[in-house]
Amino acid sequence: MSSTAGQVIKCKAAVAWEAGKPLVIEEVELAPPQANEVRMKILFTALCHTDVYFWEAKGQTPMFPRIFGHEAGGIVESVGEGVTELQPGDHVLPIFTGECGKCSHCKSEESNLCDTLRINTERGVLLNDGKTRFSKNGQPIYHFLGTSTFSEYTIAHAGCVAKINPEAPLDKVCVLSCGVSTGMGATLNVAKPKKGQSVAVFGLGAVGLAACEGARMAGAGRIIGVDLNPDRFNEAKKFGVTDFVNPKDHDKPVQEVIAEMTNGGVDRAVECTGSFQAMISAFECVHDGWGVAVLVGVPNKDDAFKTHPLNFLNERTLKGTFFGNYKPRTDIPARVEKYMQKELELEKFITHSVPFSEINKAFDYMLKGESIRCVIRMDA
Amino acid sequence: MSSTAGQVIKCKAAVAWEAGKPLVIEEVELAPPQANEVRMKILFTALCHTDVYFWEAKGQTPMFPRIFGHEAGGIVESVGEGVTELQPGDHVLPIFTGECGKCSHCKSEESNLCDTLRINTERGVLLNDGKTRFSKNGQPIYHFLGTSTFSEYTIAHAGCVAKINPEAPLDKVCVLSCGVSTGMGATLNVAKPKKGQSVAVFGLGAVGLAACEGARMAGAGRIIGVDLNPDRFNEAKKFGVTDFVNPKDHDKPVQEVIAEMTNGGVDRAVECTGSFQAMISAFECVHDGWGVAVLVGVPNKDDAFKTHPLNFLNERTLKGTFFGNYKPRTDIPARVEKYMQKELELEKFITHSVPFSEINKAFDYMLKGESIRCVIRMDA
Repeated sequence: MSSTAGQVIKCKAAVAWEAGKPLVIEEVELAPPQANEVRMKILFTALCHTDVYFWEAKGQTPMFPRIFGHEAGGIVESVGEGVTELQPGDHVLPIFTGECGKCSHCKSEESNLCDTLRINTERGVLLNDGKTRFSKNGQPIYHFLGTSTFSEYTIAHAGCVAKINPEAPLDKVCVLSCGVSTGMGATLNVAKPKKGQSVAVFGLGAVGLAACEGARMAGAGRIIGVDLNPDRFNEAKKFGVTDFVNPKDHDKPVQEVIAEMTNGGVDRAVECTGSFQAMISAFECVHDGWGVAVLVGVPNKDDAFKTHPLNFLNERTLKGTFFGNYKPRTDIPARVEKYMQKELELEKFITHSVPFSEINKAFDYMLKGESIRCVIRMDA
Repeated sequence: MSSTAGQVIKCKAAVAWEAGKPLVIEEVELAPPQANEVRMKILFTALCHTDVYFWEAKGQTPMFPRIFGHEAGGIVESVGEGVTELQPGDHVLPIFTGECGKCSHCKSEESNLCDTLRINTERGVLLNDGKTRFSKNGQPIYHFLGTSTFSEYTIAHAGCVAKINPEAPLDKVCVLSCGVSTGMGATLNVAKPKKGQSVAVFGLGAVGLAACEGARMAGAGRIIGVDLNPDRFNEAKKFGVTDFVNPKDHDKPVQEVIAEMTNGGVDRAVECTGSFQAMISAFECVHDGWGVAVLVGVPNKDDAFKTHPLNFLNERTLKGTFFGNYKPRTDIPARVEKYMQKELELEKFITHSVPFSEINKAFDYMLKGESIRCVIRMDA
């Protein structure tokens, strides 16, 4: 039992007081974990686009003050009542979506959309009592995605905490908490290319590059990266990308360009931009008879996916995925093992690293498009 | 060797001289089979909606005179040069789409969209020389779907002829040539419901009922039939349908009605109407996390499938199929065996039977919506 168990912890957290304004490192109070909750010491956290999107708060109801952060690695400090699968000292990755283990989704082999603990970007509190555990001078500070890892200590529902191999370096495997697993799983679990097949990946950000990494791991014969930014191709080569297509370089639709490059279409396509036009292109560029396209990128509220039904009748498949179809507690520990066995390369995703005190630099790197992942060192 | 081999055969055929006008039984001449062709004596043929659609010629370039028909059973009379897998006396089902065995589709485990012999509704001639084999007084008569089974004898490409168990009753298994396999395969090969799962089938015509039969064979726990015609429910019960939904009975979209009936959505949906609205409903009524919808019905030229991309991202799958994903020569003989083993019930599809001389009655039954399948007896 740690000496802090059952106590309020005072710790440093990067608080977002207002939309789009730099985070402020503050001393905050973190209450003890309630039933089914886990309190963790965070050692490393990375910045993901989703943090930036909700910090900018351009498309949603603003919810401030809030502590962002959802890609992280840490060590359990204490657990609340009813938590039996985790104990202080366990090495863990908190995950933004959970696994209750009891609902129809958790019981399905195919789904990871847990009824109880499914991602909820609108919720700023924890489930047990509908309140926050963070506060400063009595003012509640909202949670984000149930993880809020931009803090030296945080609390999450036990169903959102994956226990991993304690030998795994948390500064590397922390990126498995979100983007890397999302892209890699989209390819490996959903698109499922066979050895030697061709895969087109739309969008070469972190998730898209992870989709490429999944294609590389699956032994794809050709990986076609599609992006509007030609600077991304060089970086993408490290992730197995063999061909680059910039839609801006062509007068005809990119799906036609890809079909011509591949004798009728790619075997698999993975869409990681969230643009509905890219979704349509990704679907229409797969080969008839067996092609499978997978949507990963999150669209705008009013977007529509539109295509001629014959594109389906010619035996194409369109699927969508969330978090790479991984069940967080069941499947993520095995991803960590893949890294330990050197089958999955995580280092190349981590382009930057900053001490916690310079967390706002991580935002700058991402906003300028310079970083894939910037890891924030909490103890520095 | 039959005595007619190598000779022109004079035989009776039901010729469509004009769009929408009753067929006329004529004595026609049928040339011998050329390279890779098979000449067959047709014993039984059934009428399918596709025959009626092209006979009415409301949506396409008319091509007359033409001999329709593509669901049939017969016996090989003679074969052309290069045909090694079939010989006179073989019991066969001619199929409207073929299997060359050599192209990338035929080599793929997943596709049946043969590059060379894929269905072509616009072609009225045979591939070998681009000419017809049928004529009357020197006037060529067009083929239909490469089968033209409304004739006592016909010719098809050998890649479009499935050799079946000679014990199988041709008056029953002839319906496996098109509609029944299309619907059944859509469920068994593409939707693939697991035992106990729920399946919604949109459209309770022959193809839809065959999709229900596939669901019954797969052990589906609940089969929801969706049709605008309430008269179809009684018939549909024979095919395993447990629940009936008439979209006209509800103010809300049918996908919402089905989601409410099934605690969030059906496990599988199969769309057999060709209406793009039904396609959208079929997709949107499947459960998030694992639901799969399959499109079978052929849409109009200008239709669009449209949905919010989040419906995909919530882990739904949309696929299309052609001829139930069956490869005609490889897979259809095994369907015949399923019938012989009494796992597949064909009798209930065959609601009517007429002698060849009364073939126009078969059109009447279908146009009035009275028949599922009317089998035409060529020797009567």
